[in-house]
Amino acid sequence: MGPGPSDVSPRVLEALGRPTIGHLDPEFVGLMDEIKSLLHYAFQTNNELTLPVSAPGSAGMEACFVNLVSPGDTVIVCQNGVFGGRMKENVERCGGTAVMVEDEWGQPIDIAKVKAAFEQYPTAKVLAFVHAETSTGVQSDAKALCQLATDNHALSIVDTVTSVGGINVDIDGWGADAVYSGTQKCLSCVPGISPVSFGPRAVAAIQNREHKVQSWFLDMQLVMGYWGGNTKRAYHHTAPVNAMYALHESLLMLKEEGLENAWQRHQTHHDALVAGLEAMGLSMVVDKAHRLPQLNLVNLPEGADDAAVRAALLSEYSLEIGAGLGALAGKAWRIGLMGHACSKKNVVLCLSALDNVLSAQGAKINSGVAVAAALASY
Amino acid sequence: MGPGPSDVSPRVLEALGRPTIGHLDPEFVGLMDEIKSLLHYAFQTNNELTLPVSAPGSAGMEACFVNLVSPGDTVIVCQNGVFGGRMKENVERCGGTAVMVEDEWGQPIDIAKVKAAFEQYPTAKVLAFVHAETSTGVQSDAKALCQLATDNHALSIVDTVTSVGGINVDIDGWGADAVYSGTQKCLSCVPGISPVSFGPRAVAAIQNREHKVQSWFLDMQLVMGYWGGNTKRAYHHTAPVNAMYALHESLLMLKEEGLENAWQRHQTHHDALVAGLEAMGLSMVVDKAHRLPQLNLVNLPEGADDAAVRAALLSEYSLEIGAGLGALAGKAWRIGLMGHACSKKNVVLCLSALDNVLSAQGAKINSGVAVAAALASY
Repeated sequence: MGPGPSDVSPRVLEALGRPTIGHLDPEFVGLMDEIKSLLHYAFQTNNELTLPVSAPGSAGMEACFVNLVSPGDTVIVCQNGVFGGRMKENVERCGGTAVMVEDEWGQPIDIAKVKAAFEQYPTAKVLAFVHAETSTGVQSDAKALCQLATDNHALSIVDTVTSVGGINVDIDGWGADAVYSGTQKCLSCVPGISPVSFGPRAVAAIQNREHKVQSWFLDMQLVMGYWGGNTKRAYHHTAPVNAMYALHESLLMLKEEGLENAWQRHQTHHDALVAGLEAMGLSMVVDKAHRLPQLNLVNLPEGADDAAVRAALLSEYSLEIGAGLGALAGKAWRIGLMGHACSKKNVVLCLSALDNVLSAQGAKINSGVAVAAALASY
Repeated sequence: MGPGPSDVSPRVLEALGRPTIGHLDPEFVGLMDEIKSLLHYAFQTNNELTLPVSAPGSAGMEACFVNLVSPGDTVIVCQNGVFGGRMKENVERCGGTAVMVEDEWGQPIDIAKVKAAFEQYPTAKVLAFVHAETSTGVQSDAKALCQLATDNHALSIVDTVTSVGGINVDIDGWGADAVYSGTQKCLSCVPGISPVSFGPRAVAAIQNREHKVQSWFLDMQLVMGYWGGNTKRAYHHTAPVNAMYALHESLLMLKEEGLENAWQRHQTHHDALVAGLEAMGLSMVVDKAHRLPQLNLVNLPEGADDAAVRAALLSEYSLEIGAGLGALAGKAWRIGLMGHACSKKNVVLCLSALDNVLSAQGAKINSGVAVAAALASY
């Protein structure tokens, strides 16, 4: 129940361990086609250029930036947590200039500030932002931000690592141009793969590039030769075949459950967890309107020792919760309710264990009432 | 029995499917330390900066180039197959100039030509070459090439994707500066991870860089914060936890067998396969002195239809062999004997199946003698 990787379902682990076949085997090519189709469903898009990058989310982020940002480009980057900072690094390593729009950690992106940035930098080529900030548990208004990019003739790059499968990710509805994600959060697949999707305007920008993409491995024109279209698949790199079995299975599970049902499940267990935490006397960091159901930022109660509590949860209950990051380090915990791990069982386990460990360490809480409060919320 | 991914042993698949834990979990950090130690053994090196890149071999290649090549640098690139061409792409995308030293496909790198290139470009910063060319089944003299680089105050970048675990890879003995590899060949681990190692001269070059590495994901100074030393592990990216379980298990198996025993096993079964193929009347593409035991390039016999034979092997025998690439496309097959798949059972299966399929298709071979010839060689 940390900020990810989340618990992987036995069904996905079973798929992962199937015998490895060749990355150009006809059976594997068929599986690749199914993965693309399932990603269209998960992302709610018809974008042809939708595929899993064979590396973690950080590489998916880099794939978006190196394909769309060229030296001299101005990129407006929203930062309200850790991952906006990483986007800035990416822009600069592509030779671009990052114009930072900063909000406090724990707050969503302020649309008015982004609007002002576009007024100041009307030729900005890209707007980059994080839909669901894993470092703070905040969601921002992706639809409004993508619209703002389009209105200003800029491309949007959207981080959906923590959102896909947990809350509504609607690439076509938003009009998002480039989106990357991760497998290890609400998809409950093993970490190491980053699904990406590029819309028509982004594809046109890639096709009209003047210089080659600085990364050979992440050059989407080359990757598409392997993943794309109806033509013969050209060898680009050796795909992580077994990880693709797992991704396929996890996406199939999402489709079987249905997107809306998955979102509702995350919301239901989130509500119960919050009811329990608040009954215990703990307070949430993020305003209700912007909270991610899958990642719960809770303030440490008086008298709690951050590291000691997390160590006790791990050693006594095999339960991982995440530390706060950046401005929230030592002040908040990050409790994940992601994918397969988002269950009544885990809500009850987490509340019971926290109650026990905090009481034993003498923190100021209302002991013995959290589980009942959570159950009452169902 | 293609050119990789090779068959993965059940023991490695079992490890792969273990429950996912956090990438900063103390248990996982312990596993990371063991992986580093096992890589030191497999690569025969004491290089501190030895770790698995969380992406396929193509990304391991790129990690070496982006960290060591800066705009304006001259790099001597040896090309005697597909992967030298990919190195050229990498150099150019780093803003460097690639000086190509070309040899025929199926021939090893000619040391005299490399010497001449250094005479013509005495300030070349890097010499890059492939130890074991997966596209042609040829090995080149890595020790002599690394020495030539050192003599000319250049850094060596060495591709050992297909060699490690199958033939002698001796980073410290060679004095190699930067080496990348893959998990999916003679280590018989699942594809998707690229072990790399950087020696002291390469580390110094990285530390003295004037500009940031163009890839955030592959920036070794950042990656080291997660994988390195005795200090607290800093989050860089989410490691592909399950793939690391598998890599750990495959490296452990290599250590249990012993490097020399593993090399001998590859040589023994290679000798038997060649005896069988030659008895059948087929000829090898590569001279005996430069053949890779783990990747056997064999000329198509008269009357054989490349694609039809490979399709029949796959559908009738579940047996994959590789097509020829580049200059060898349609003219040769690539038969892998890698890692777990390098066994007497596979030698006999391959010869029997080839004999049967080629006979059925009316190719000119000596039928019915290959298996006996192979068995006589043991």
